[in-house]
Amino acid sequence: MGDIERGYIRLLRQLTECQEVSKEEMKEFCEKLNEEHQIWVLEDGEEVVGTGTLFIESKIIHGMGKVGHIEDIVIDERNRGKKLGEMMIRHLTEKSKEMGCYKVILDCVESKKGFYEKCGFKEKGIQMALYFQ
Amino acid sequence: MGDIERGYIRLLRQLTECQEVSKEEMKEFCEKLNEEHQIWVLEDGEEVVGTGTLFIESKIIHGMGKVGHIEDIVIDERNRGKKLGEMMIRHLTEKSKEMGCYKVILDCVESKKGFYEKCGFKEKGIQMALYFQ
Repeated sequence: MGDIERGYIRLLRQLTECQEVSKEEMKEFCEKLNEEHQIWVLEDGEEVVGTGTLFIESKIIHGMGKVGHIEDIVIDERNRGKKLGEMMIRHLTEKSKEMGCYKVILDCVESKKGFYEKCGFKEKGIQMALYFQ
Repeated sequence: MGDIERGYIRLLRQLTECQEVSKEEMKEFCEKLNEEHQIWVLEDGEEVVGTGTLFIESKIIHGMGKVGHIEDIVIDERNRGKKLGEMMIRHLTEKSKEMGCYKVILDCVESKKGFYEKCGFKEKGIQMALYFQ
């Protein structure tokens, strides 16, 4: 919760559009987080320098299998080149394994493909999107 | 719940590996389904001829926005060419909108791109995967 004051929203803005979030909204959001919806942060002293989200989807296929979905990976632009992104991805991958997932997946732009390959991922398919707003 | 007897598992096997599921396992699974994790089926009389999953992810970005994730779309092979797939995708898209999502996304193989474009989707990125098993 204290992360919101240590630059978490500012960090998310390096990824995409992110409005101000009140303490109440953040509290309500954080209360719903659980082992199937985890948000991780990397801290450097008082500053949040990286974040990543993992949520776990339970399926019927693959022996009632679970899939880890990685979302919203951001490393602070002043802290790139320190392998923090790789550290975050390896951490979320490890968490997926601990949760009993048979695979972990993510979507990215073409230019990030090499980075994820270095983390052990392989290209699997294409991501399609439909925007309402 | 009755769907398991009307060929639901047989249908999922047209998508991927799917072991037998006991009534107890299915009951436990179904009890966890809610408006943020919905499984829909298309029925033709007594038979399940199509299925699709929608789960809703709450984010902090995009004004505490929500994203609809479409997963595990299958139309029975004897019932293809009847636009049931399109009907299912439009239904899940509509549900995402009703749930207040700012977008709905899915991953697919290249050969299905045209189908999803017909449903209003656009190619957005690539899907990367890491398999543990």
